[in-house]
Amino acid sequence: MKLNGRIWIEESDKFIGIGRVELLELIKKTGSINKAAQTMNMSYKKAWGLVNSMNEQSSKPLVLTQTGGEKGGGATITDEAQRLIDAYKEIQERFKKFLSDETSKLHR
Amino acid sequence: MKLNGRIWIEESDKFIGIGRVELLELIKKTGSINKAAQTMNMSYKKAWGLVNSMNEQSSKPLVLTQTGGEKGGGATITDEAQRLIDAYKEIQERFKKFLSDETSKLHR
Repeated sequence: MKLNGRIWIEESDKFIGIGRVELLELIKKTGSINKAAQTMNMSYKKAWGLVNSMNEQSSKPLVLTQTGGEKGGGATITDEAQRLIDAYKEIQERFKKFLSDETSKLHR
Repeated sequence: MKLNGRIWIEESDKFIGIGRVELLELIKKTGSINKAAQTMNMSYKKAWGLVNSMNEQSSKPLVLTQTGGEKGGGATITDEAQRLIDAYKEIQERFKKFLSDETSKLHR
């Protein structure tokens, strides 16, 4: 037997979970919501929906988009987004430890 | 901001989570899978599916059903099921503390 689980940060509603953190990191890496969506096998529409939802729920913007240019501009993440990514990952590490400690106890 | 999450015990697959624990407790309380399902606003069919799935995944049976009698007999849970319920609830308490501690850290 093994304990498993998921955690997420809520604002009014579900706000940042593991999928959205991955999306933000890929936007940072690729400079593009489209490329990030492709890497995650996610539709362009869904990725934009998630970005809009995150930007609306957050008190400060998380993803900035630039329009114009040959391919419609790119996207960057803000310092606030980076802060959230870092916080989520630190918590996720402690959560993994919690799950592994509790799994050991289950076997005793 | 608030940290929230869900945990479950896995065997080969997802095995016991908060919904299944509630179902087992209601079977214990009402002596009937039907009554337990009704209390949870769950269909008879879904509750039986969950019970069968739990019994199949577990090395020891968790729910015993009796056939016969006017209303088709009742259901009881085994000591093994009670042990799992207790383990899940203890872990859930520690998980709540984890979530609340991490929520406090988010606000610092």
